[in-house]
Amino acid sequence: MSSSIFALDWGTSNLRAFRLGADGTCHDQRAAAKGILAVPPGGFEAALTDIIGDWLTEAPDAPVILSGMVGSRQGWVEVPYAEAPAGIDALLAKALPKTLKDGRTALFLPGVSCLRDGVPDVMRGEETQIIGALALAGLADGPVCAPGTHSKWVQVAGGRIVSFATYMTGELFALLRDHSLLGRGLVRNDAGQVQAAPPDLARAGFERGVAQAFADPAVLRTLFSTRTLGLFDKIPALALADYLSGLLIGAEVAAALPEGGRGTVPVIASAALADRYAWALALRGYTAQPISGDAAAVAGLAHFATAYLRQGR
Amino acid sequence: MSSSIFALDWGTSNLRAFRLGADGTCHDQRAAAKGILAVPPGGFEAALTDIIGDWLTEAPDAPVILSGMVGSRQGWVEVPYAEAPAGIDALLAKALPKTLKDGRTALFLPGVSCLRDGVPDVMRGEETQIIGALALAGLADGPVCAPGTHSKWVQVAGGRIVSFATYMTGELFALLRDHSLLGRGLVRNDAGQVQAAPPDLARAGFERGVAQAFADPAVLRTLFSTRTLGLFDKIPALALADYLSGLLIGAEVAAALPEGGRGTVPVIASAALADRYAWALALRGYTAQPISGDAAAVAGLAHFATAYLRQGR
Repeated sequence: MSSSIFALDWGTSNLRAFRLGADGTCHDQRAAAKGILAVPPGGFEAALTDIIGDWLTEAPDAPVILSGMVGSRQGWVEVPYAEAPAGIDALLAKALPKTLKDGRTALFLPGVSCLRDGVPDVMRGEETQIIGALALAGLADGPVCAPGTHSKWVQVAGGRIVSFATYMTGELFALLRDHSLLGRGLVRNDAGQVQAAPPDLARAGFERGVAQAFADPAVLRTLFSTRTLGLFDKIPALALADYLSGLLIGAEVAAALPEGGRGTVPVIASAALADRYAWALALRGYTAQPISGDAAAVAGLAHFATAYLRQGR
Repeated sequence: MSSSIFALDWGTSNLRAFRLGADGTCHDQRAAAKGILAVPPGGFEAALTDIIGDWLTEAPDAPVILSGMVGSRQGWVEVPYAEAPAGIDALLAKALPKTLKDGRTALFLPGVSCLRDGVPDVMRGEETQIIGALALAGLADGPVCAPGTHSKWVQVAGGRIVSFATYMTGELFALLRDHSLLGRGLVRNDAGQVQAAPPDLARAGFERGVAQAFADPAVLRTLFSTRTLGLFDKIPALALADYLSGLLIGAEVAAALPEGGRGTVPVIASAALADRYAWALALRGYTAQPISGDAAAVAGLAHFATAYLRQGR
């Protein structure tokens, strides 16, 4: 059994690499804006060497374990999705090994698919962060939220991912801000970027959007209020982007979490985004537990790495 | 009382002009892609002469009545919104007259505003079409739908507009088709335009989207299925744009019309768009009555014109 392992969360836009001991302790870590879209065809092994070549040289027998879009059709090795429900063992059983030029093994973890009422959903990389976030939160069950361009809400029971759903919240916000009629009503600087409101105003605008989303679940119908509330001077123009953000995140939270529930929900996000989800969750009666993407990734990868090393492969 | 009147539906992108008798009969009509955005500041009277100068010369005393965005801040004369509930008389009472250079009166009709749970909504021009469509359908009550970039669903009772809501369905579809991840999965021709599916396939894809929207009201959550159903080859790529259209129009219809209802709903739209709404409404148990925008506009303007002439102004 190797005494160390290199674990990578290699996504579409970014890469995180962790140098782990056999017990999962992280001894070193690196990040690079070298997502799979920035790697030329056939260039993945060279890209890996670019980033952690010195680690590889120092531990020539240590395996590499990889999670995320690097295991997709556009990545290095395509790994079919593991169907939910699935826990660490089921995901490891679906992982695909590849022998690198220097003889070491690289193990590519699968993404997860699920069926909701006959409609498939997929994720690749988030499942590792989900498992890590639950461990960090000391939970084996419950919903976990990984917000972003495509937010994931994941139901976990007994450490296994049972089901999940993807919400296109972040992408829709960016589309509406940058390309829609609503975007034309926002206050922008000379470079065309939306100007940030002072913190109190931003939070008030955001929470008003959340409240509106909770009161009316039809996003298609609530969106236009971003324009009319501005038109009638009922919300300061500077807070309209926050209101729109609240409308969308509020609709996501309302669809993902039952009303009248309570409890702690791990939210895997940067501090600024985690704040917004914390405000929306609080209005729904829940408590958000913010966990950074780095922390969730290394904790999740450590679980996979130690389980893999224990298998003695 | 003048024996004739010129009635205009002058919107953001287009203009329709009708030459009406005192009884509202349409004797001639013209259309031009000369919306208010195409008119330079101070150029509205010249634009009017460009389009119906010969009519104006032939009937120097005939008034002009105008509906639509021409009465907005970006238009010719800004007319404050009339608050719903409002019928023809209330709207006429809020209309603003202006004396043109040749001495005749131009009467600018107001748009309509309403409050839904304290949130304002507005329309300008659709109210005229709504009143016309109901008259053409022989109805004094019920919902009327004016689909498009920003779909309006309007509740009318006793000939008065009681309330309404704006759905950003058409704009959202265009954003998702042209700028989102979902748009990248659509089949396009060499010019980058989404390729139309054969009619049967298009309808099947659309209706599958409607069914999905009816089954799950959360648009933010259903949108991603456009990608996954394509990814798992569960819908032909050629039908994915229709599926996405069905998801959005289905969500609009589900939010606008109660389940288990029935009855006829006038739908003011071009034939192709009216077909889609008719399919969605049928799956909800309703019957769409398609009415063209031209027909609805002239019928509505005729009501305003005859009521105005009867006032003897």
